[in-house]
Amino acid sequence: MTDQPSKKKGPAARLERRDFIKKATAGTAVAAAGIAASTFPKPSLSQGRMKWRMQTTWPKNFPGLGTGANTLAEFIGKASDGRLTVEVFGGGEIVPAFETMDAVNSGTIEMGHGAPYYWKGKVAASQFIASVPFGLNPAEQNAWVQFGGGQELADKVYKEMGCKFFVSGNTGVQMGGWFNKEIHSVEDYKGLKMRIPGLGGEVVKAAGGNVVNLPGGEIPPALASGAIDATEWVGPYNDLAFGLYKSAKYYYYPGWHEPGTVLDNFVGLKAWEGLSSDLQAIIATANAYANLFVFNEFNANNNASLNTLVNDHKVVLKKFPDEVLDNLGGLSGKVVGDLAAADPLSREVMESIATFRKQSIAYAKISEQAFYNARGLPFKWVDL
Amino acid sequence: MTDQPSKKKGPAARLERRDFIKKATAGTAVAAAGIAASTFPKPSLSQGRMKWRMQTTWPKNFPGLGTGANTLAEFIGKASDGRLTVEVFGGGEIVPAFETMDAVNSGTIEMGHGAPYYWKGKVAASQFIASVPFGLNPAEQNAWVQFGGGQELADKVYKEMGCKFFVSGNTGVQMGGWFNKEIHSVEDYKGLKMRIPGLGGEVVKAAGGNVVNLPGGEIPPALASGAIDATEWVGPYNDLAFGLYKSAKYYYYPGWHEPGTVLDNFVGLKAWEGLSSDLQAIIATANAYANLFVFNEFNANNNASLNTLVNDHKVVLKKFPDEVLDNLGGLSGKVVGDLAAADPLSREVMESIATFRKQSIAYAKISEQAFYNARGLPFKWVDL
Repeated sequence: MTDQPSKKKGPAARLERRDFIKKATAGTAVAAAGIAASTFPKPSLSQGRMKWRMQTTWPKNFPGLGTGANTLAEFIGKASDGRLTVEVFGGGEIVPAFETMDAVNSGTIEMGHGAPYYWKGKVAASQFIASVPFGLNPAEQNAWVQFGGGQELADKVYKEMGCKFFVSGNTGVQMGGWFNKEIHSVEDYKGLKMRIPGLGGEVVKAAGGNVVNLPGGEIPPALASGAIDATEWVGPYNDLAFGLYKSAKYYYYPGWHEPGTVLDNFVGLKAWEGLSSDLQAIIATANAYANLFVFNEFNANNNASLNTLVNDHKVVLKKFPDEVLDNLGGLSGKVVGDLAAADPLSREVMESIATFRKQSIAYAKISEQAFYNARGLPFKWVDL
Repeated sequence: MTDQPSKKKGPAARLERRDFIKKATAGTAVAAAGIAASTFPKPSLSQGRMKWRMQTTWPKNFPGLGTGANTLAEFIGKASDGRLTVEVFGGGEIVPAFETMDAVNSGTIEMGHGAPYYWKGKVAASQFIASVPFGLNPAEQNAWVQFGGGQELADKVYKEMGCKFFVSGNTGVQMGGWFNKEIHSVEDYKGLKMRIPGLGGEVVKAAGGNVVNLPGGEIPPALASGAIDATEWVGPYNDLAFGLYKSAKYYYYPGWHEPGTVLDNFVGLKAWEGLSSDLQAIIATANAYANLFVFNEFNANNNASLNTLVNDHKVVLKKFPDEVLDNLGGLSGKVVGDLAAADPLSREVMESIATFRKQSIAYAKISEQAFYNARGLPFKWVDL
């Protein structure tokens, strides 16, 4: 594995250990990271009212990700009429962002919010639940979880980490990343210094890339100095907020490496099993609400952000050539297949995903994909 | 309007008035349709427990549609710990299916479940909220409702019918329909006798089609006798269950006329406003759960149903030629535009949808659509 949790992709990467301690000690209500975490008060139950704490791996209120966690907490509180309130902490406010799972597992906090691939160092199979290169899109991913055996498999994976699993958001098809060199052929990946974590990073490595991992804050200077040639992040809505256009010229699509990244809400099993069935149902439905909310927020904002990037910041939008995508697709098949074959649980998850993907591809061709093509024909639509 | 509510598309069409009365009088707990409805007991409030009734426009337990309504009711009951239970009635069990809105409006029942275009005879703008030919796909539709002003507009439309509006499911991109004649050119629509309701029907009429409306039960014999040449329904999962393959040979895609049909849950305003805020939040989150559930159920089952249709029932799957789709697209623009210009509320809704559609098309090209194309390249993927 090339990427350590503390150097993992996404906004959370901004929160390096030094930052955690800085932030944690700066806060009035939070203790220094790690050490003092166990001194936090246990959830209180007074007059039938429970107070839980959820730490996210994201900076607090981060668009689409942090706001999804806020929405989840808000609706748990509202629907339970305050019988269960969930206080939201940003990554590093209680423990370092990537120790969120440990904090939930140990009972320090009751809930976490992140992405499944952050936990691959604990249970390797989790990385396949997040998103697989050239795998499922968000709608297919949701259908796999609910009707394709995904919930049961994810619960099995998360049980090994002492947690109950919920899908709590989806980023949609991500962008391919920011490049300072054009990609004309898969040969251009040879020696390319790119920050790309997870399964996508393994694929780029197989293509000859020099895959590096950097915390988010170090990406812009590394791009500007030429220390790296490329990086991926999320999509226009997040990438604009993060300012990546200042350091890279070319913005490539599509995000073959993360076609529908799942956000996870994980609840400590002891806390979960101690809940009455109505509060369990409230958590399940609030997660469905958050899942839609996050995806909707990205879908509603990505295009305007992209326009700002292209028109105001003169970013050059480019599609990966088909030859490149076809080669990366083949490499993905090999790399992901090898990783999945490494342990029985990973294999079980990937076999299930591969089966669901086959039928999804067949049906997409005559439904969503055929509709997109039809809608793109030259006719003039409604003009009010 | 070519289609009367009682002859509207979808499974509900099976429930013609005669059927309603038959079913209603046959039931032990339900009264004869219409007349006796007002004698039903009002919702009871004993020991803080409310019992509501929801009638669907669908046959009870109908796959994807009725099951979505069941799921909504189930999670309201679970999340409220039985403080609010919702009993589900199939179309016609309390009042005729298309009088469900009247029954909610009058307070006979508290909730209904159907599709927005069923209410176009009451408020014309509702038909645009359901789905628009060549309009938004399901993900775009959800994003429009939550972040594009759709919820506010739908609430405005439904307020005129005395209700609060929730999205409670989506069928996904539908199929183009069942045909006994091949469609080679838009000229083939001239004189084509097709059962297709709503906005899609208006477009087929504009193409020279002879649009007829038939209750569902009369469709198979009408197709078999040549009284009609074609019909649309939903998609493979529903169409297989309905047995349409017995009477038509060609199954066309994509469903340009309904690219992401919304199911609605409507709550009588008086009942809604009388709820505590926790029960309101429970209804909102349970609808999000139902919305995902319905779409997931279709996504998980459509392909296997299609395979059964093609392999076991020898259905011939065909794509509408691009020339036909381009012409239907242009006609849709004109027909929908004219209908939307007919009243201020319809215009307001359609202007909002058209704005959201423009940005959705631009972004889909570099995200979902580009990903589908990349995934369809010839490379070999994971083989475990």
